[in-house]
Amino acid sequence: MDLDLVRTLVIPGSTKILLLSADGLGGFPDPATGRSELETARLPHLDALARRGSCGLLRHVAPGITPGSGPGHLGLFGYEPLRYPVGRGVLEALGIDFDLRAGDVAARGNFCTVDATGRITDRRAGRISTERCIELVARLRRIELPAIELHVEPVKEHRFVLVLRGPGLSARLSETDPQTLGQPPLPARALDPAAQATADAVNRFAGEARRLLADAAPANMVLLRGFDQRPALPGFPEVFGLRAAAIAAYPMYRGLARLVGMDVLRTGSTFTDELRTLAEAWPGYDFVFLHYKDTDKAGEDGDFPGKVAALERLDAALPAIEQLRPDVLVVTGDHASPAVLRGHSWHPVPVLLAGRYAIPDAVERFTERACAAGSLGTLPAHELMPLVLAHALRLGKYGA
Amino acid sequence: MDLDLVRTLVIPGSTKILLLSADGLGGFPDPATGRSELETARLPHLDALARRGSCGLLRHVAPGITPGSGPGHLGLFGYEPLRYPVGRGVLEALGIDFDLRAGDVAARGNFCTVDATGRITDRRAGRISTERCIELVARLRRIELPAIELHVEPVKEHRFVLVLRGPGLSARLSETDPQTLGQPPLPARALDPAAQATADAVNRFAGEARRLLADAAPANMVLLRGFDQRPALPGFPEVFGLRAAAIAAYPMYRGLARLVGMDVLRTGSTFTDELRTLAEAWPGYDFVFLHYKDTDKAGEDGDFPGKVAALERLDAALPAIEQLRPDVLVVTGDHASPAVLRGHSWHPVPVLLAGRYAIPDAVERFTERACAAGSLGTLPAHELMPLVLAHALRLGKYGA
Repeated sequence: MDLDLVRTLVIPGSTKILLLSADGLGGFPDPATGRSELETARLPHLDALARRGSCGLLRHVAPGITPGSGPGHLGLFGYEPLRYPVGRGVLEALGIDFDLRAGDVAARGNFCTVDATGRITDRRAGRISTERCIELVARLRRIELPAIELHVEPVKEHRFVLVLRGPGLSARLSETDPQTLGQPPLPARALDPAAQATADAVNRFAGEARRLLADAAPANMVLLRGFDQRPALPGFPEVFGLRAAAIAAYPMYRGLARLVGMDVLRTGSTFTDELRTLAEAWPGYDFVFLHYKDTDKAGEDGDFPGKVAALERLDAALPAIEQLRPDVLVVTGDHASPAVLRGHSWHPVPVLLAGRYAIPDAVERFTERACAAGSLGTLPAHELMPLVLAHALRLGKYGA
Repeated sequence: MDLDLVRTLVIPGSTKILLLSADGLGGFPDPATGRSELETARLPHLDALARRGSCGLLRHVAPGITPGSGPGHLGLFGYEPLRYPVGRGVLEALGIDFDLRAGDVAARGNFCTVDATGRITDRRAGRISTERCIELVARLRRIELPAIELHVEPVKEHRFVLVLRGPGLSARLSETDPQTLGQPPLPARALDPAAQATADAVNRFAGEARRLLADAAPANMVLLRGFDQRPALPGFPEVFGLRAAAIAAYPMYRGLARLVGMDVLRTGSTFTDELRTLAEAWPGYDFVFLHYKDTDKAGEDGDFPGKVAALERLDAALPAIEQLRPDVLVVTGDHASPAVLRGHSWHPVPVLLAGRYAIPDAVERFTERACAAGSLGTLPAHELMPLVLAHALRLGKYGA
């Protein structure tokens, strides 16, 4: 459903909504037991919520497509990920809490190794340490370009973010990373004429970087890709008529929430900190997005028992959340991260929607397989928000 | 999901995929027993696969739309049938294994009967025998047109295919069949100016045909419809990154596979021949499409026990297929052909997807009703291929 149409249907209300996203929630059966992480964990509170709510599965991009964290969360926020693409450079900038502004051009950078003839011998510079990355970024910050403000920010190991700020920039640039060894880095080419000045600036940056890094092998050159600008997304508070806050310890999720115009609340680095922030902020908002990271971390590490434990810790936190008495409480995730696959996967993700007007279905447990039989069916993630608003009695009738 | 986008997500792999299409697989309950063909048949191997795989239903075009074999299979191959239409003339040409080339214009022809004033009295010429059709096609082959190569090929009974080959042809032509009796055949009209020369050629062919068939009543004239050119479909091997082969005894399915760029393997006329071809070809391909025709034949004949027997023969062949150890094995069909309806129907078709990363769901039998509760849900057929690729670990993440 088009967001412009949703917006026309929104009616004011005083109901409150809590969206809990357990990152990488969905799992996959352990071959030894035949049970997934959710099926293995003891989750009395989540199961009780599943019993009194409506359940289903969410698909964040399309069948078979493994979502990154960006598309995964945009879908949860009601934005169709294929319609509102967010480039790699922008996601990297968001991931370090960089204050990316409209018009900025961001790129993902890698330190790399080139040989004496300038050909790439290692696209990741032997994965230098983050400390070394910080030192070399300090060198790159010496680069100055006329009329363009440059920001170079270290990320982790060989990764950094480059942001160009100035009037009339364009991200319609080809990448400088040839994605192969034995070739020199490519010049950035303007993919449309309006991007020529930006291409020139990027190439000048790369040339200066080469000079400044000449003695820094293995990190003696840079590669740049994923040039993009902050997309102009319709604002979440405006579209859905909600005073909306985001509580997330990790920068990437704060950045995504900022991108759609939520208030991003200051919080600490643990979920306990997030819960404290939630309790304090709750009276002032209609909608809170609360992010839980531990499930994804364990999944990505291939740590099945760790993911089970992370789920059980989340479950134990539920009474504190329920105590706030949200009118609609939604628990789901941005993608699956099965420990068996050690990373994100395409499998659809359980969702439960509890509230006074949610029809309790036959689902008795909050698991992948139980939710497959739920009354919400298997739903594109971006269709969740209108459903949530409806359950909060915040959507009017379509047509007389 | 757009094929251009799927293409960007494909990653190389060494996994192998087998897609078994049982033509007209879906059925309908026998009013006497309340059980469909699949529910009546003993299918121990398919049921076992359903138990260990993920199940669902496929809809090939849209809810309520009965697919022809063309759209049915294009959907299975990953092409949204409404987005990639294939004209009648092209399907007829593919159906007789005609080597239709880019730029050729193909039409479906009917022999018909006209009276002394030229008005149509029978649009099918009393359904003349195929032998008679072959004789009359030999007469039509005498027709020569300047700068255009003509191919006239008999099909069955009153049907034939006309193909025009030459530079600058267009299929933007109106049909010569008025689809009613008591009127003369219509001239082909150019639907855009660039089609005028082709319209003239077609009308000259029809005029010559009338002269050559004057003494051949009841087949004393021709009607032409479904003018079309071979569509430029994105290539299946290129989009999905698969060395792909098709094994089908029937020409129509070979033609469809050729249309999307699969290698069409030589095989015999029986499923046993096809299985032998499969075993030989398997090492050389990443993806094999294997077609089983008997289910559809029995369904179209209204032969309920015959369709049950065809399903049981297919089931008996499964161990030989599983012995090849495909990483992903998909069993489904291109449309339903319930014996009760004696033809194709719009009912969605069971699908099972078995492989290491398929979550076994609660489905215990491979039937229409059991699969409706499966974890794949009811899926547009063209969304199956990305899902299959994902299960074969051949798709990367969308977005960072």
